[in-house]
Amino acid sequence: MSEPGARMAAEIAEQPRVFDHVLAGRAEVAAAAARIAARRPRFALLAARGSSDHAALYAKYLIEVSLQLPAGLVSPSTTTLYDAKPDLSDVLFLTVSQSGGSPDLVEATRCAREAGALTVAVTNTPDSPLRTTAELSIDVGAGAELAVAATKTYTATLLSLYLLVDAVRGGDAAEVAALGELAARTLDESADAVAEAVEHYRYVGRMVTTGRGYSSATAAEAALKLAETSYLAARAYSGADLLHGPVAAIDADTGVLAVTSLGRGGEAMRDVVAAVRERGADVLAVGSAAADVGAARWITVPETAEEVAPILEILPLQRLALGLALARGGDPDRPRGLSKVTRTR
Amino acid sequence: MSEPGARMAAEIAEQPRVFDHVLAGRAEVAAAAARIAARRPRFALLAARGSSDHAALYAKYLIEVSLQLPAGLVSPSTTTLYDAKPDLSDVLFLTVSQSGGSPDLVEATRCAREAGALTVAVTNTPDSPLRTTAELSIDVGAGAELAVAATKTYTATLLSLYLLVDAVRGGDAAEVAALGELAARTLDESADAVAEAVEHYRYVGRMVTTGRGYSSATAAEAALKLAETSYLAARAYSGADLLHGPVAAIDADTGVLAVTSLGRGGEAMRDVVAAVRERGADVLAVGSAAADVGAARWITVPETAEEVAPILEILPLQRLALGLALARGGDPDRPRGLSKVTRTR
Repeated sequence: MSEPGARMAAEIAEQPRVFDHVLAGRAEVAAAAARIAARRPRFALLAARGSSDHAALYAKYLIEVSLQLPAGLVSPSTTTLYDAKPDLSDVLFLTVSQSGGSPDLVEATRCAREAGALTVAVTNTPDSPLRTTAELSIDVGAGAELAVAATKTYTATLLSLYLLVDAVRGGDAAEVAALGELAARTLDESADAVAEAVEHYRYVGRMVTTGRGYSSATAAEAALKLAETSYLAARAYSGADLLHGPVAAIDADTGVLAVTSLGRGGEAMRDVVAAVRERGADVLAVGSAAADVGAARWITVPETAEEVAPILEILPLQRLALGLALARGGDPDRPRGLSKVTRTR
Repeated sequence: MSEPGARMAAEIAEQPRVFDHVLAGRAEVAAAAARIAARRPRFALLAARGSSDHAALYAKYLIEVSLQLPAGLVSPSTTTLYDAKPDLSDVLFLTVSQSGGSPDLVEATRCAREAGALTVAVTNTPDSPLRTTAELSIDVGAGAELAVAATKTYTATLLSLYLLVDAVRGGDAAEVAALGELAARTLDESADAVAEAVEHYRYVGRMVTTGRGYSSATAAEAALKLAETSYLAARAYSGADLLHGPVAAIDADTGVLAVTSLGRGGEAMRDVVAAVRERGADVLAVGSAAADVGAARWITVPETAEEVAPILEILPLQRLALGLALARGGDPDRPRGLSKVTRTR
């Protein structure tokens, strides 16, 4: 048996190389993008579960802002439980699933294709049922992921989705060209701040994560990582939703993690950080603007275009989840009651 | 000053009469429904924040299943932060807001109307900015809500949305005809079980709420009520998502509230309840099938059509949130740091 967390640690560290690999495979993504652009979809629907749901949330922002298409996250159960059969011509139906094996996603994709949608599977498993069900597919190319907590498949999925959307609108991926190197810098330069945060939160009972815009995906994914590896009561709110009620549950015993990168989403987080600080919570800010929002502590991430930031912001947070799990005596490679593929219907 | 929680208690108790009132105003809703049906929308987008977001989630299921239209929840920030301007012809854009005053929702609605959508505001405030911005509007008719925690406006909104969708598909509202009386029965018959649950959870540190299908809205709203009135770390997961990771954070110290009504959503919850019980959590089931899913304790709700169940399921959970807040020494009418209208941009 390996050391606790060894797999998760190795896969976190692998991400800079994974990004280089994904970027090298850009031609496959561009081919799929050309077919999407040719079909001129009017709407996008995204289906996913777990970590992939957060990747889908990221894609939703990209599609709405970059492609100017309305986009919605699908509840697969409207199809799988309730047999809904809407007309989906003109619809881009994007299914995001690391394993490509979840039966409800396969079924939702099959129904969407029958209903006339252009179906695209984004998975890390080339011969998965999802890839044979969807009309187009994109291999995320992160390589086998052995740790139960998804890390490199999550970020590789974000990057693949970015490349896909960028190619659909005719971009040349310039904003992500150096992403492998930036990821290596992110991991290097954040190591001390992450170690301090692990120490600080060793005994925290609950955490709230929050972000706005593109970075709401980072907040959601960070909460899931913390909950599944450290068994923390961690939950995510969009910065806007947080002020509509849940802020009442925040007090001096709540650890608040605010994702704040340069750009409009991070800018809009200033009010959220101020409101949370007023309640006595100490705030850890993470992102390229983290040092500058009035938080008690911060983890800085190199600057990128705002829409690329989520691919880097999550890296130190994966390490935080790993570090906290180890500090609290757990083994994130063998979390209680979780297996790699969850089969929901 | 009134007794702690007196306003919230009064507004919870008022709901049977509010339902009768909403049902009596069905003609206004039918007129809006006729205009929606005439426009034959192909897609629905829903915008909301806070409790109204859970009402929108409910409407999303109704629209997808009953109207067979793909539907998505909008992130208002793609418009308000990032200036996205998608083409929204053929789109039904439904904004749900109790106050009708949130600037980001008004702005998102204004942009949607300019972009060609048929905009419909569902609010409890007849002269709100939202109602003058949207092309059509529906007055939820719950009357003034004085407690900070939304109760009667939430259920009146669900019922109004049900009536709207039912009328668009040419229904006669038969499934909700007796809803006022059923609500009175729900409140009466659940009183003892709610009191026992308050006693049981007096010292709970964290709760997870879960449901599937239509009832995922109930789980989300219950978690918000518990968090904002009792300051509990309460969070909701769809039953399917819960098994993809967060189940690892559930242990014998987690109170789990499972919404299980008769129908496909409740049926699909059996696996979820079993998985959670395996982890040592004691489960409180709530709904018309609650006595029958293997939970340790339950609160039963009268049987209705599955798509109507969320309007009743939440009633005892509002009382649970109120009772817990009072038992823990709080005043849900004056929660820390919350005001009735939250102004996000």
